[in-house]
Amino acid sequence: MSQYWSPAVRELTPYVPGEQPREQLVKLNTNENPYPPAPGVGEALRDYATDHLRLYPDPTSASLRAALAETLNVHSRQIFVGNGSDEVLAFAFQAFFCHNAPLDVPAITYSFYPVYANLYGVELRKHPLNAQWEVDTQALADGGERSGVIFANPNAPTGHAHSLATIEALLQRVTDRVVLVDEAYVDFGAESAVALVNRYPNLLVTSTFSKSRSLAGLRLGYAVGSEELIDGLQRVKDSFNSYPVDSLASLVGIAALKDTEHFEACREHVITTRERTRQRLEGLGFEVLPSKANFVLTQHPEHAGPQLFAGLRERGILVRHFNTPELNNFLRITIGTDDEMDSLMEALEVICG
Amino acid sequence: MSQYWSPAVRELTPYVPGEQPREQLVKLNTNENPYPPAPGVGEALRDYATDHLRLYPDPTSASLRAALAETLNVHSRQIFVGNGSDEVLAFAFQAFFCHNAPLDVPAITYSFYPVYANLYGVELRKHPLNAQWEVDTQALADGGERSGVIFANPNAPTGHAHSLATIEALLQRVTDRVVLVDEAYVDFGAESAVALVNRYPNLLVTSTFSKSRSLAGLRLGYAVGSEELIDGLQRVKDSFNSYPVDSLASLVGIAALKDTEHFEACREHVITTRERTRQRLEGLGFEVLPSKANFVLTQHPEHAGPQLFAGLRERGILVRHFNTPELNNFLRITIGTDDEMDSLMEALEVICG
Repeated sequence: MSQYWSPAVRELTPYVPGEQPREQLVKLNTNENPYPPAPGVGEALRDYATDHLRLYPDPTSASLRAALAETLNVHSRQIFVGNGSDEVLAFAFQAFFCHNAPLDVPAITYSFYPVYANLYGVELRKHPLNAQWEVDTQALADGGERSGVIFANPNAPTGHAHSLATIEALLQRVTDRVVLVDEAYVDFGAESAVALVNRYPNLLVTSTFSKSRSLAGLRLGYAVGSEELIDGLQRVKDSFNSYPVDSLASLVGIAALKDTEHFEACREHVITTRERTRQRLEGLGFEVLPSKANFVLTQHPEHAGPQLFAGLRERGILVRHFNTPELNNFLRITIGTDDEMDSLMEALEVICG
Repeated sequence: MSQYWSPAVRELTPYVPGEQPREQLVKLNTNENPYPPAPGVGEALRDYATDHLRLYPDPTSASLRAALAETLNVHSRQIFVGNGSDEVLAFAFQAFFCHNAPLDVPAITYSFYPVYANLYGVELRKHPLNAQWEVDTQALADGGERSGVIFANPNAPTGHAHSLATIEALLQRVTDRVVLVDEAYVDFGAESAVALVNRYPNLLVTSTFSKSRSLAGLRLGYAVGSEELIDGLQRVKDSFNSYPVDSLASLVGIAALKDTEHFEACREHVITTRERTRQRLEGLGFEVLPSKANFVLTQHPEHAGPQLFAGLRERGILVRHFNTPELNNFLRITIGTDDEMDSLMEALEVICG
């Protein structure tokens, strides 16, 4: 605490990201992709004339937005890009959710949402998950006067995904404020609501290159929606930082989008490994929530979450444990390579055996 | 305007950066360095194992902060890094200037400050420059109850720089709130207030890799100050985006810092060209404000700013013109290579001849 801080800053509770360990561990804690980015990424960096770095980037990121527009089959004016989807989400909170009414949000979801809410003075109305640990979209729509609705699909850290029909039903009921669907994990088996943006001007879909494009180190995220929503994000961004996407990030992002084959192969491999991991965990007596993401949330009836976390860490395996009452008994395990999952299972067999 | 926008976002007046033209022009409009970044930058990118991009960056940017700490002779806990000094400035406004009192600022300075003030609801108390177009630090200190003080040294777009003694005199009078000295252009001949941070816990110095390190395309900026100020910035950043500095930006920034020889040669060349340009402009009858930056602000008694701007543009030369009452007659001209400045002078000789 410091006398020089703004009063509101004294009240912030910053987000704590998963650990980036310095020692060699089997790292299954931050939902990174176990496979490298497209080979074209390396080629693009090697061929880049670094002299261009002396010039500012294009503040509109036109080339990257055009590449995304082609990939997603929308107009480039419907695309906003930023320094990771975290920055895009922060801009969206400021652009759309600062009304004098609460924001409807699932009680268990990406834990950065309450941090943004605190940063921008947005009140949250939290809706419990249902008995199957699924987001209750009915309850989200029932909220009444609101500043907006936000949820992740698939949800984090549960992995549960809604069908497009469920999301459309929500959009038919919430028309006055923005409905933000955070699709960071959508490529691992869920349906993208980008298909709905031309019909619902209040739908904003966010996503990232961090997961399915294997580019967490690059910090590249985007939003898709109607032009008026994209304009709102642009106004905030242009009042904050003219060029949040640097020249190398644009270059690398475009190279990654070009390689459809690599993208498909990696995500299919992750999906196959996820299903195999689920079966093996269930074989050891774990309850595994159905997941359409690149992670699973799991608990064991006889072994407490903190002890499992510690036992794995002792054996050089890092997973994510959330120290909250609802999630304390669970582990969130990122889907790694088949070898990494073999190491995980061997360690769990010893711990639970 | 959209019904979905937050009310405050409807009132924003975003910053408009200098044009990044697509056609081939002599580009003297956004204060980029005419020389390429250090050769080590290209080597670092070519040698980089792109597989690492699948992993998140270090959220604390420890290696880059250590390299900066060594360069600036401070402790790495006194350093904050961000996605360009624009982002660092935005965080600083939120972290330090959101008190119920005005922020003291020169009336003519970096035009992003009023944009941040609008974004964060900070009232500005603007102090006119003196008759020599210099920031009046006496007036800044006289303001009374305040949320803080911000100014650029050298100032933009005038180029005027204060001595350390002047800045220290201000710091001796303003002790209750943060004094932010924006040193984006300091390496082109001014004295850095980093020398004072250990004595004034309320002094925050910001700077950038965009200008003297020739890395505008990379988006890398930093702040130096007491640990309590750095902690305040960190709290805002960790409530906004865990990793604003991506893995490539860290890598490239460190490579640039290592090459002292290249850094010194480039900035000395810019300084020499600036002084030569000044003399030549004066030879054509221009008034040129004394500048310690990589640009000059200049006006001609017989030729209006807008006409000069248009005449240069017709001849393929892009400079910066500010459409405000005080600056309407001026041009801000970035110092380019000697060849670029020859082209500028030839064009001006025709226009003014």
